[in-house]
Amino acid sequence: MTWLVNNPSEFAKEMVAGFVSANAEIVRQVPGGVVRNTQSQPDTVAVVIGGGSGHYPAFAGLVGQGLAHGAAMGNLFASPSAQQICSVARAANNGAGVLLAFGNYAGDVLHFGLARERLIAEGIPCELIAVTDDITSASSAEMEKRRGVAGDLIVFKAAAAAAEQGYSLDDVLAIAREANARTRTLGVAFSGCTLPGAEEPLFTVPEGCMGFGMGIHGEPGIRDVAVPSADALAEMLVEHLLNELPAGVTAEGARVGAIVNGLGSVKYEELFVLWHSIQQRLLTQGIILADVQVGEFVTSFNMAGLSLTLTWFTPQLETLWMAPAYSP
Amino acid sequence: MTWLVNNPSEFAKEMVAGFVSANAEIVRQVPGGVVRNTQSQPDTVAVVIGGGSGHYPAFAGLVGQGLAHGAAMGNLFASPSAQQICSVARAANNGAGVLLAFGNYAGDVLHFGLARERLIAEGIPCELIAVTDDITSASSAEMEKRRGVAGDLIVFKAAAAAAEQGYSLDDVLAIAREANARTRTLGVAFSGCTLPGAEEPLFTVPEGCMGFGMGIHGEPGIRDVAVPSADALAEMLVEHLLNELPAGVTAEGARVGAIVNGLGSVKYEELFVLWHSIQQRLLTQGIILADVQVGEFVTSFNMAGLSLTLTWFTPQLETLWMAPAYSP
Repeated sequence: MTWLVNNPSEFAKEMVAGFVSANAEIVRQVPGGVVRNTQSQPDTVAVVIGGGSGHYPAFAGLVGQGLAHGAAMGNLFASPSAQQICSVARAANNGAGVLLAFGNYAGDVLHFGLARERLIAEGIPCELIAVTDDITSASSAEMEKRRGVAGDLIVFKAAAAAAEQGYSLDDVLAIAREANARTRTLGVAFSGCTLPGAEEPLFTVPEGCMGFGMGIHGEPGIRDVAVPSADALAEMLVEHLLNELPAGVTAEGARVGAIVNGLGSVKYEELFVLWHSIQQRLLTQGIILADVQVGEFVTSFNMAGLSLTLTWFTPQLETLWMAPAYSP
Repeated sequence: MTWLVNNPSEFAKEMVAGFVSANAEIVRQVPGGVVRNTQSQPDTVAVVIGGGSGHYPAFAGLVGQGLAHGAAMGNLFASPSAQQICSVARAANNGAGVLLAFGNYAGDVLHFGLARERLIAEGIPCELIAVTDDITSASSAEMEKRRGVAGDLIVFKAAAAAAEQGYSLDDVLAIAREANARTRTLGVAFSGCTLPGAEEPLFTVPEGCMGFGMGIHGEPGIRDVAVPSADALAEMLVEHLLNELPAGVTAEGARVGAIVNGLGSVKYEELFVLWHSIQQRLLTQGIILADVQVGEFVTSFNMAGLSLTLTWFTPQLETLWMAPAYSP
């Protein structure tokens, strides 16, 4: 259930208004989304992110000093339009071009692509990065078809930190691509989510089952399995992610950033139990945990689910990930 | 449902281990709970908080520079023992005494009270503050019987910021009492929560209903009502809180800190829609919104519910609330 609704068709609009008023020292509203409400360095690249609403803090909550410069906010689980994206990009532009960054979904690819063409036609240099971290959404031979999920945060943060340091648009794009190429996520779901005004969940998972590899909008995963223990789930997540090492990476001795991401109704206490078990398995492999984040970063309303993301750091990516940031 | 469990009897222990390892730069584990893993000023008061587990980020997630010095962590929804509290207090003690701060529940009152006696007997000056912000849990004639809910955060933060500035134990206690006296919360619930290993929810709310004034462990509120629109709920929350102004406070022109707190499964998007509506009503009353926080601060696992907290600032309380803090 979604509980707090007036007119469902007004939900996204009211949500944005409430979000902006509660975070007015960090973000301000512009047509199509939000941008930083703080001064950015002139002549630096702007990183503009976006996607459908319903994934808070993605996308608007990831705007702020050291993180994104702006976010285009679509309707619930719907891509923003090219017009919205252009509007936010123009407002965020600091004079050195714009990187548009988003999860790899058909609607987003279409609209961000159109926006790029328009911005270039207006004289604003613009590049695209579609995040593809979800390992179950296509084979490793077709990595470019994979969806973007919690790994969005890593790619956005690396690109934004590089922009903050004055890197050129080409260099920011190269860093975003490298962050994406080194980031892998695997998610599971125990229940679906219900959109405002709907009586029924958008999708369901059979009682007592877990959708292994299920996407954050209910996209099918590898299979349904019986809900495992926390330890058994940790084992499954780690095993599959270690079978998907980026080219040239050896697990032993590698420095890794890990994100345990709750999708909504699986709560912090449970995520910590899972992390406790994941951590032991990663350490057994000789992996060095450079940073760990356990919380809700890319959600799906009140969906019961979670994901594990591993980023195989280069020294540069680790520095960019650890750089300070302040966002809602 | 709670999804991620190994042996339910080990849940709390594994949760603490996972929490500490994911936040090792901020907290470290001691017998009975956690303390800051950073240096505190010598000869300052230590603020030690605590309560049952299951309310994350309360209580352990509220430990860190500028916030609490330590947290005693009980089992799920169960007070920590006096032994646990004493252990954490000894580890947190900076030489100028300890303020024990907790929500006003029978078990907590008993165990924190016992801990205070033991600490004093050991030569550690110690005072108590039981937070009583939940307006529906007793009448205004019996305020000392009220429960502590999301207002915990305000009282803890004010006391901790005062301690950070070198205030004496008596002065920190006086500030905590004033913060408590000026803080009011009203909560509602749409569904109960299910503890690890349990088949059934700990409590339920009738289908299509909302428990108005329900506590964070299912304690009965004023009444069950049909789930209202977001606007109607905002109206109810604001109306009841404005009928409970602290002595000497006039709404018009008052500077207020507001917290919209999600209890677990009511998500950020919905909380923002509600805040949008609450804000309009507060502004209509001539209230000045000095600070707003919308998120999850004192939760109840995956319970679907939320609360609105208003703190009627003095200049001193506002300064203490706005002071920097860094916690999980």
